[in-house]
Amino acid sequence: MPSSYDLIIVGGGPAGITAGIYASRYKLNTLLVTKDFGGQMGRTPVAIENYPGFESILGPELIRKFEQHLRTKKIDIEKDRIREVKKKNDEFIVVTEGKKEFKAQAVIVATGADPRPLQVPGEKEFIGRGVSYCSHCDGPLFSDKIVAIAGGGNSALGTALFLASIAKKIYILEAGEKARADAENQERVQKTGKAEIITSAVIKEIRGDKFVDSLIYQNLKEKKERTLEVEGVFVEIGLQPAVSAVKGLVDFNENDEIKIDPETCRTKTDGLFAAGDVAAGQFKQIIIACGQGARAALAAFQYLQAANLL
Amino acid sequence: MPSSYDLIIVGGGPAGITAGIYASRYKLNTLLVTKDFGGQMGRTPVAIENYPGFESILGPELIRKFEQHLRTKKIDIEKDRIREVKKKNDEFIVVTEGKKEFKAQAVIVATGADPRPLQVPGEKEFIGRGVSYCSHCDGPLFSDKIVAIAGGGNSALGTALFLASIAKKIYILEAGEKARADAENQERVQKTGKAEIITSAVIKEIRGDKFVDSLIYQNLKEKKERTLEVEGVFVEIGLQPAVSAVKGLVDFNENDEIKIDPETCRTKTDGLFAAGDVAAGQFKQIIIACGQGARAALAAFQYLQAANLL
Repeated sequence: MPSSYDLIIVGGGPAGITAGIYASRYKLNTLLVTKDFGGQMGRTPVAIENYPGFESILGPELIRKFEQHLRTKKIDIEKDRIREVKKKNDEFIVVTEGKKEFKAQAVIVATGADPRPLQVPGEKEFIGRGVSYCSHCDGPLFSDKIVAIAGGGNSALGTALFLASIAKKIYILEAGEKARADAENQERVQKTGKAEIITSAVIKEIRGDKFVDSLIYQNLKEKKERTLEVEGVFVEIGLQPAVSAVKGLVDFNENDEIKIDPETCRTKTDGLFAAGDVAAGQFKQIIIACGQGARAALAAFQYLQAANLL
Repeated sequence: MPSSYDLIIVGGGPAGITAGIYASRYKLNTLLVTKDFGGQMGRTPVAIENYPGFESILGPELIRKFEQHLRTKKIDIEKDRIREVKKKNDEFIVVTEGKKEFKAQAVIVATGADPRPLQVPGEKEFIGRGVSYCSHCDGPLFSDKIVAIAGGGNSALGTALFLASIAKKIYILEAGEKARADAENQERVQKTGKAEIITSAVIKEIRGDKFVDSLIYQNLKEKKERTLEVEGVFVEIGLQPAVSAVKGLVDFNENDEIKIDPETCRTKTDGLFAAGDVAAGQFKQIIIACGQGARAALAAFQYLQAANLL
């Protein structure tokens, strides 16, 4: 494997894979660095019903198809996480956790973001069986059911609004003394008549047999543990964009996402692009991440050509 | 079929279909108006190799999968072209060519764009057999072949740059006395050593047997007809965004594309969104159009909710 490339793509989710497919079509000498393909999407067996072309497909299966597609192309793949991306004398240096170094003229960061987990017993066990980190993906499965949402910020209340047209009843559990979401959002959620906000509520455990049937929370004011019978728990306590490797090269928005030009995915550093969930944007969807991966690769090609680096 | 909707989507290509899939997931009462699905993509049997998940699939087949996917959702479909979109008293009125009228609170315009054809003998007959309107789609099929590009603007020269890494030799035929592309682009094309720009050249006919084997052009200065032996003709004389129905409601960029906010696909008219090739954007790709369709539907949902229209 050579140590120098036209383009290095960091990340093997929908954005990174699409960028790889496009880069290969432009004959860019490309390396894709990822520990494994699909990240969160590759690990959780959730049915995806909004990626056009597949009426219903499990996340890991769709990612397998993406990976197969990528592997028909001429592209090098290094299976590792990255430690750091540096820029020296107009050239990027990508350092992996295995301490390999690769050079490139352009870099696309597509390292994604992980939902912050609750880290309580039962959470991991019931992923895909009642526990969800994506209401738009899984919400439709909870038609006429009672569900809980962990979190009281705008994304939690947005989830509640979305679920209000689907579920029978929604508990919103906020650890603080009041929900942090906009008043407007809170008003809208109240108007649905289906949601109940419980404040000072810290989830302690998620329980069930095959599927979730209840959760235990501590009421911080009453200092009592309480049980809620729910069939779904949507965890909406924030995302953690995976940005540590590029900290010095980019600007961030208020959600710690990398600021980009939405048309070209350019960051503030020439030659450095960001796509997918790691990049600023209110809509986090597979099809949107793929579109951004294509934009980033096309813009990287234009950049390399304009700078006479090809 | 009711006459009033939350959302009307106009257009049945990748952007419109994706918007429909998303709108149905948000339980928006939605109508999609299109004469037929896929537009250009549905008609030309070109292999698509850059839509993630399908290593290689013919355009009409991919559109058929998109349409099947859409039809699993709760959405009304009116098979007609639109004549006009009006806004009256905060409500949109969509008029079809069949003179039906539908009302909606929000509209997504995804009517696409058609490449301007040369309108010469042989052009239509050899589509998919040497004649192409999309170098990024079809370019890889012309490895080591001699090809011609019709047009001398930036998109034609961009096509030449792309093809320079694939084809053996490229003729660029410009009808004017000099190519209209940026000097920089022209310089880059010259540097490839593979391209020859022929000015004052008007293509008269495309010829071949099973596949294209030559073209005839008129040299306007010499007033002579000449023949070029080529196996491919890429037509790059501009696009015609299909915008006539919404002319009064939107602003246009220099390419007659609808100006949008790239994050949300909003136009200057509240409640009116544009996605896909009809919208301003330098990258015209299926996967990008799909991403925009999703953005437009999500933003339309937010708009309807914020305006208490749901």
